[in-house]
Amino acid sequence: MGIAVIYGSSRRNGNSEQLAKRLTEGFEADHIRLADYKIEPIQDYRHTDKEPYPEDDYRTVIDRVLAQDKLVFATPIYWYGPSGLTKTFIDRWSQSLREDKDGFLAKLRGKSAWVIGIGDDVPHLKGIPLVQQFQYIFDYTGTRYEGYILGKANRPGDILEDEDALTAVEQIRKRWLAEQRLIAENQ
Amino acid sequence: MGIAVIYGSSRRNGNSEQLAKRLTEGFEADHIRLADYKIEPIQDYRHTDKEPYPEDDYRTVIDRVLAQDKLVFATPIYWYGPSGLTKTFIDRWSQSLREDKDGFLAKLRGKSAWVIGIGDDVPHLKGIPLVQQFQYIFDYTGTRYEGYILGKANRPGDILEDEDALTAVEQIRKRWLAEQRLIAENQ
Amino acid sequence: MGIAVIYGSSRRNGNSEQLAKRLTEGFEADHIRLADYKIEPIQDYRHTDKEPYPEDDYRTVIDRVLAQDKLVFATPIYWYGPSGLTKTFIDRWSQSLREDKDGFLAKLRGKSAWVIGIGDDVPHLKGIPLVQQFQYIFDYTGTRYEGYILGKANRPGDILEDEDALTAVEQIRKRWLAEQRLIAENQ
Amino acid sequence: MGIAVIYGSSRRNGNSEQLAKRLTEGFEADHIRLADYKIEPIQDYRHTDKEPYPEDDYRTVIDRVLAQDKLVFATPIYWYGPSGLTKTFIDRWSQSLREDKDGFLAKLRGKSAWVIGIGDDVPHLKGIPLVQQFQYIFDYTGTRYEGYILGKANRPGDILEDEDALTAVEQIRKRWLAEQRLIAENQ
Repeated sequence: MGIAVIYGSSRRNGNSEQLAKRLTEGFEADHIRLADYKIEPIQDYRHTDKEPYPEDDYRTVIDRVLAQDKLVFATPIYWYGPSGLTKTFIDRWSQSLREDKDGFLAKLRGKSAWVIGIGDDVPHLKGIPLVQQFQYIFDYTGTRYEGYILGKANRPGDILEDEDALTAVEQIRKRWLAEQRLIAENQ
Repeated sequence: MGIAVIYGSSRRNGNSEQLAKRLTEGFEADHIRLADYKIEPIQDYRHTDKEPYPEDDYRTVIDRVLAQDKLVFATPIYWYGPSGLTKTFIDRWSQSLREDKDGFLAKLRGKSAWVIGIGDDVPHLKGIPLVQQFQYIFDYTGTRYEGYILGKANRPGDILEDEDALTAVEQIRKRWLAEQRLIAENQ
Repeated sequence: MGIAVIYGSSRRNGNSEQLAKRLTEGFEADHIRLADYKIEPIQDYRHTDKEPYPEDDYRTVIDRVLAQDKLVFATPIYWYGPSGLTKTFIDRWSQSLREDKDGFLAKLRGKSAWVIGIGDDVPHLKGIPLVQQFQYIFDYTGTRYEGYILGKANRPGDILEDEDALTAVEQIRKRWLAEQRLIAENQ
Repeated sequence: MGIAVIYGSSRRNGNSEQLAKRLTEGFEADHIRLADYKIEPIQDYRHTDKEPYPEDDYRTVIDRVLAQDKLVFATPIYWYGPSGLTKTFIDRWSQSLREDKDGFLAKLRGKSAWVIGIGDDVPHLKGIPLVQQFQYIFDYTGTRYEGYILGKANRPGDILEDEDALTAVEQIRKRWLAEQRLIAENQ
């Protein structure tokens, strides 16, 4: 099992995407660009008779996410939170909860997660609400929130000049490589 | 000029909607249910040649919002943040910034804003990332962030039993009524 | 058992004290003004041979706190956090943890807590780090964090003009009174 | 002008101290261990006739801090905030504000600041209230909040095994060295 990289930008090859690719390069990863899929806003059916949920791409995407054991959310920081694409996707988790709560949570539990948020307005401080939002999300799902990178960039490619972000990426890669070696040795 | 109430739930007459209606009852208000409109995710055109933005309902909605001098965002707390509908709408503000930054900010500056977030998982604590996200949003736009209500509810109607939320609503109404009287007296 | 009210101001009858007195008026309460006691900063003895902790008033104060089943921390917001007096007192809890971890936590577990923070620089927003700090404190000790009031005041007495704070106080009092009635009926 | 390193631990050579020393090694720095000084809690004299402030070491310490152009606060994370020693010191800034507000703020404005917080309970997440508290402090004083390191350690020396913290230290050092070179070239 590998890494599900969930790209939340509408922009192809934007900064959050570039950094996430650098992070996951050479690792087994399923790259999921939310912008390539049709995912409708959640319908709140918690208190109605079950109506059909939208027949869109949500199930396909969530299945790919759940198939991996590491999650990397890579999102631009739009208006001090995850992008609407990212948020709309996560909102749909309520559908999965309603359809099979125990099964869904069992799959998320024990996974590890990282969050990459890239913005240009003091992201190391003003990105904190985004970090905390994911903290509560992963608390709820029982997912280990291993770390986050709040990178600074505006024009595409800027992120490759954010030394702090690049260094943080290297740190995570080191850990993953050590983990891989350990697994290899034990086989 | 009155109040733009921006409903972010997909559910008609849900808890955040009920509380916002109680808050604004009897005041001049434009009630905008985002779920009734088609608003696409933002396209990030900041660094490309200007391409057409989606021809959807965004402009209609934002114009109605900007026409009022008070803003009330009423959103369920989905996954510890504003609903995807709400977030997707706010993300599109980047389009307005790109089309007419000074004009857009000039309109938001000086408006007052309140946020209603309703959730069922310890909202007075776990709703804080949502509160702080709006804090940075309004800092950026120069909008006065007058207050927020983090209410607790799950089934539709529950919110009318959250005494703290109802009391907070009354407090804001009192202030608005005092304001109205003041304006009436000065005419 | 009643309420331990822990006053963190150096000022007698300051705003946080006035609000906390209004909150607890008529209830069985032990009023503890930290400024009346000598409480030294924590010595970090976690990794040394046990040395004597300061022979100051800490034990007296913590015993009074632990003897009640409700805790109200009433502190001015100094520099966006609890006062140094309050913080220094809480830091000393590490001494109690070291001397009798299980006993100490057993006593804090199951208590309920409220936090009153009064400041004059946008306390409903800039008081949030204080709220969250107590959130993690009470998470750790297993104490129920029932609520907080972020009131606005500068000159002594100002707080009695903060309608939101006064209303929040009334809400908590109502709940306590209902609780008292329930207990009385069941006796 | 150099770096004022403000150590907030009661423990000599604890983790926050070790990391801060590593950060500042080879740079002109004034190392200030708050535990070596007598600094009383703030007296709130804002609304009384001016009474004498405690004749303790506060003035000596604050003068040394203000004499430098970079500030590094190195504090253990005690109970999810800065240590009582650190907090009590910062609370006394209110004395400086009262004695010479404009002069005091003029000195802090334009300085740069870093915060090191070391804890053992998920510091990268539960240290966030500490980070945000300093954010508002530096907003108020007009100090540039360049960065923070939330390191993980418990026993003395542990911090030297926190690769993320060490890497973050190297990043800051690189920037300071580049800055030094630039200054040297321009002389």
